[in-house]
Amino acid sequence: MLKNVEHIGIAVKNLAEAEIRYSRLLNIQPYKREVVESECVSTSFFQIARTKIELLEATNSESVIAKFIDRKGEGIHHMAFEVDDIAAEMKRLEGEGFVLLNEQPKRGADNKLVCFLHPKSTSGVLIELCQEIKNG
Amino acid sequence: MLKNVEHIGIAVKNLAEAEIRYSRLLNIQPYKREVVESECVSTSFFQIARTKIELLEATNSESVIAKFIDRKGEGIHHMAFEVDDIAAEMKRLEGEGFVLLNEQPKRGADNKLVCFLHPKSTSGVLIELCQEIKNG
Repeated sequence: MLKNVEHIGIAVKNLAEAEIRYSRLLNIQPYKREVVESECVSTSFFQIARTKIELLEATNSESVIAKFIDRKGEGIHHMAFEVDDIAAEMKRLEGEGFVLLNEQPKRGADNKLVCFLHPKSTSGVLIELCQEIKNG
Repeated sequence: MLKNVEHIGIAVKNLAEAEIRYSRLLNIQPYKREVVESECVSTSFFQIARTKIELLEATNSESVIAKFIDRKGEGIHHMAFEVDDIAAEMKRLEGEGFVLLNEQPKRGADNKLVCFLHPKSTSGVLIELCQEIKNG
């Protein structure tokens, strides 16, 4: 079950500038920054009710974010839905004909297990499923 | 104050096909369809917790949705934040240097007063403010 729009990921060229812009827009400060080495991105998070705004800057030219900006310019990169059981949801969606970009859930930003769906099966939208990793 | 991600608007070529796809993805049915004549769009809405997914199909080639798809392909078109007082928020954001695309709030889909912010001031994201119209 997709429970909630957990976050919206926005590809930006300059994280520091975008942070200032989104702080003014949302009238709040980002609650954390995090570098995800495996994805070659620096991120910054804002919380609005149950949804986060995740700003994403590429840390090198091979990052998917750099390639996205080259192709489409800055803007919304993906939309993420919170799930309780990512493995069960991946299985259900594969059965419904969606194309999974990860065979197994992988470790994402913000202490999550994540899996992406190919935009060709979702009307052009890169969709992420994310399940919080319970510590302890 | 931007209170909540009220909806995500997704530009699609074929609303009927996208409805089937998103019904399978979200495992729920759309709760309504609505044509917004002034915007030349047909819409379909799904509710996930406090956020709606709004599918948007152009009703003619002059629609902003048709032009968006010509330029960028199908995908996320805009992100909308719920506000209590749209006029006050428009004034605040204009003061912060954001470029408003509407001088006055206008009537949008789903019984809302809406105003859009130019993507050049928001890292490429078309942002909508929306305030529910109280009836009676």
